[in-house]
Amino acid sequence: MNGAELEAQVAALAAGDVRTAARLISRIERGDDTLVPLLQALYRRGGHAQVIGVTGPPGAGKSTLVSRLVAHWRAQGRRVAVLAVDPSSPFTGGAVLGDRVRMAEHACDDGVFIRSMASRSHLGGLARATGDALVVLEAMPWDVVVVETVGVGQNETEIMRHAPVVMLVQTPMGGDDVQAAKAGITEIGDLFVVNKADHPQADATVRQLLDMIALAQRLHPDRGWQPPVLKTQAVEGGGIAELVAAIERCFAHFASHPADSERRCSARLRHRVGEVLRELLDRRLRAGNDPGIEPMLPALRRRESDPYTVASLLLERIG
Amino acid sequence: MNGAELEAQVAALAAGDVRTAARLISRIERGDDTLVPLLQALYRRGGHAQVIGVTGPPGAGKSTLVSRLVAHWRAQGRRVAVLAVDPSSPFTGGAVLGDRVRMAEHACDDGVFIRSMASRSHLGGLARATGDALVVLEAMPWDVVVVETVGVGQNETEIMRHAPVVMLVQTPMGGDDVQAAKAGITEIGDLFVVNKADHPQADATVRQLLDMIALAQRLHPDRGWQPPVLKTQAVEGGGIAELVAAIERCFAHFASHPADSERRCSARLRHRVGEVLRELLDRRLRAGNDPGIEPMLPALRRRESDPYTVASLLLERIG
Repeated sequence: MNGAELEAQVAALAAGDVRTAARLISRIERGDDTLVPLLQALYRRGGHAQVIGVTGPPGAGKSTLVSRLVAHWRAQGRRVAVLAVDPSSPFTGGAVLGDRVRMAEHACDDGVFIRSMASRSHLGGLARATGDALVVLEAMPWDVVVVETVGVGQNETEIMRHAPVVMLVQTPMGGDDVQAAKAGITEIGDLFVVNKADHPQADATVRQLLDMIALAQRLHPDRGWQPPVLKTQAVEGGGIAELVAAIERCFAHFASHPADSERRCSARLRHRVGEVLRELLDRRLRAGNDPGIEPMLPALRRRESDPYTVASLLLERIG
Repeated sequence: MNGAELEAQVAALAAGDVRTAARLISRIERGDDTLVPLLQALYRRGGHAQVIGVTGPPGAGKSTLVSRLVAHWRAQGRRVAVLAVDPSSPFTGGAVLGDRVRMAEHACDDGVFIRSMASRSHLGGLARATGDALVVLEAMPWDVVVVETVGVGQNETEIMRHAPVVMLVQTPMGGDDVQAAKAGITEIGDLFVVNKADHPQADATVRQLLDMIALAQRLHPDRGWQPPVLKTQAVEGGGIAELVAAIERCFAHFASHPADSERRCSARLRHRVGEVLRELLDRRLRAGNDPGIEPMLPALRRRESDPYTVASLLLERIG
């Protein structure tokens, strides 16, 4: 991509051209390395949308809930992009297809862009690709960008680390199940939603979540924001207005608490730089003939040095 | 581990103490980071054993073949260690247990050490752990160290990259199956074995392999060593003496062709340093507060820089 082509892509995205966005996200999915100069330019133009991550176990009703939220935001005149990431469907794309069908109600609304991504490349690559796709979406005139993923352990956490605000969607369930399902994830949740709130165990689940949040707050007293627990019935639309208001309060909190906001932003960026660095390192090592390693090979071959010492020396050079 | 403890461990391994080896390999499996100083010392004392990798699809008869090879080497008075790595059994260890039962004929021979390793840690971690376990075994007075793994795609290649000489075990099969099974693996094979050689398709399989090797040689004319294809019947012991002789010829070739040997050794070390570097980088990033990234965070937060630029800058510092 030469400079003029790059500028043309940047301009198309800034004008809200969804076909350009879709094409770029496809190239990101395929692991196209040549996009880096464009992503560099796009990152520097982003930062204006409210980016919110939505995660939770399969069947919690995330897609229906997101669809209701989108309708609510649209009624407020806000433009919304949804990136549905499915780490559990590397090839079939089953769940993602299901999501798309459910999202069909927004299909004719050009104030909404819905795009799914599945894991086509190596493990760990999906989280990085999600970060890249968010850079594309953030360089467009969306007011809200939702990144949605199915909760399947480590992957969801890695993907959610790209979102400044994370909403965790849960269904009513027994206490032990909540414990098992949520170990770790309370650490990254800013908003908790118990969907299907007409279920007899809904209130018990809310109490469980409140207990877990209180525990997490004691462990991290500097978190600043106190995550609320909300009840929704996404199918009927119950609780959606309250949830939208809670999301607004969350973004308003961080806007008015710059120290909290800066700390969280730094943590995200640290993680993001590490993710990109790992990818660059992998690519360089796969190519062979590494300029840092070459001069050390004779001593390594003679076993006067060792791979642990050499790797540490190389890492220390990073700073 | 203080200096005296470290020296005691080094001395125990040098004296051939298999209980020390077994304990260390268990700690490596668990991802114990504190072993690095010991591994540094051990690597520098290694390099004396003939290390040979054995891989191939499930059911090819690898374990029986290795057991026959071990018996042959023992009859020659050589001391042998076998590391059986099973990437396909993260928890159950099924195949590994099967291997152990079949290896039982050597159970009472203290000139033989057999140890299995399964994937207990994150993906990719098993290949690195295998490299660490080989460092332990190479610091002991074994004449031959075998690292055996089930062929399951990318993993086997990563694991086999630790072995200076790689043997690929195949069963007789149709031509298309050989093609499918072996794409990529001919690149790393130095010896090819068609086991169960009484099968009617054995000779056709040998011819297929010879064609694939000839192609690989044309693609890499500088490889030096021409991989042979041997036929065995491991259960009855047929062809084992010839295979042992071919292995000897392979090691003798590289001993008498230092340029080939050096090039291959450098490729292994490049890969090994990269593997350790990636692990150290992951560990450092997980710990947060990275000294290289911190000074760049304000510009990143203001979007005057971007994660791609920062990651490239950090990587350039490596050299």
